[in-house]
Amino acid sequence: MDSPSIEALIKSFSKMPLIGSRMAERLALHITKMKEDDLQTFLNAISSVRQNIKRCKQCYHLSEKPLCHFCSNTKRDSKVVCVVESSSDLLSIEKTKFFQGLYHVLDGTISPLDGIGPSHINLGALMNRLKNSDVEEIILATNPTSNGEATATYITKSINSLKKNIVVSRIGLGIAMGSELSYVDKFSLTRSLQFRTKKL
Amino acid sequence: MDSPSIEALIKSFSKMPLIGSRMAERLALHITKMKEDDLQTFLNAISSVRQNIKRCKQCYHLSEKPLCHFCSNTKRDSKVVCVVESSSDLLSIEKTKFFQGLYHVLDGTISPLDGIGPSHINLGALMNRLKNSDVEEIILATNPTSNGEATATYITKSINSLKKNIVVSRIGLGIAMGSELSYVDKFSLTRSLQFRTKKL
Repeated sequence: MDSPSIEALIKSFSKMPLIGSRMAERLALHITKMKEDDLQTFLNAISSVRQNIKRCKQCYHLSEKPLCHFCSNTKRDSKVVCVVESSSDLLSIEKTKFFQGLYHVLDGTISPLDGIGPSHINLGALMNRLKNSDVEEIILATNPTSNGEATATYITKSINSLKKNIVVSRIGLGIAMGSELSYVDKFSLTRSLQFRTKKL
Repeated sequence: MDSPSIEALIKSFSKMPLIGSRMAERLALHITKMKEDDLQTFLNAISSVRQNIKRCKQCYHLSEKPLCHFCSNTKRDSKVVCVVESSSDLLSIEKTKFFQGLYHVLDGTISPLDGIGPSHINLGALMNRLKNSDVEEIILATNPTSNGEATATYITKSINSLKKNIVVSRIGLGIAMGSELSYVDKFSLTRSLQFRTKKL
């Protein structure tokens, strides 16, 4: 491109999630063409997000208030807590409209290879929360990756050691709806056999 | 999301090219998590692009200098000018490393339905450029859409009316490399028959 300014902006965009090099280029070129008004709206939105968004003091979800709108909603079932890796995962679950309990955002997973231990994520806070509340069930909704699974296992052990009679469940893993057996990877297929449920 | 700040940022991201609603959400959440240093680098890059990037006074490509690095490069063939809709298209052509001439960026196409006429794009500038230079060939590389085709036709007529003995060519249209005939749409197939070339 032979323009240090645009190259620098392309580089910044490339570091964002889901943005590849070609898309970063398109976005940088788009910035050159944006109307001054739209650019200001964008920059103000960034600055407002950085100033106003904090973490909910109970569940660590992003929130503009000390307690997020799930934790402060008395209509939700505070006895069931769904543990997720990120606010993004929380929003995905929320979109199903199926879950009516509260959340706990770990903000990561345990990842020994990257030097991320239990103390680097919001796990201590989860344990304190469980000690001081009447939560009856924890749903572990970490991703079905090796780190997500390891984190789920670690949390299960930690909760069991609390001896508080809390049911720990894991989200159902197996075959995605609409997929065909012959195209499913063997790990998902194994999971789906392992977690088979009785037809009612 | 129940956060006006984040909603506003998601909306701003959604207005950018290639960014859908889910991706806009991911990017907005990413902004909340960015390190202060990285955010500053990003904001500085935007401000630098807005301050430094102008249009090349000859070809209208984005440039930090009055003449872009194509127009100011004496090694490039100034007798062949490739006409493109946008700087983004220019960069795509440049990546092939095949073309060694100069460019002219229209910054749009003629689009009667949207009220965009020849005077709204850099067409007058192209005609002036051709009148006052020794350009021998114009390659029309507008997109094979109805607006792109109409613009190519309009430019051909305009150049012919200059009576300057300039060869006007259109980029080859037809079937993409690697595609299979049975999956190609009938318009591309018609084009590929229409623009067949003799085997050497």
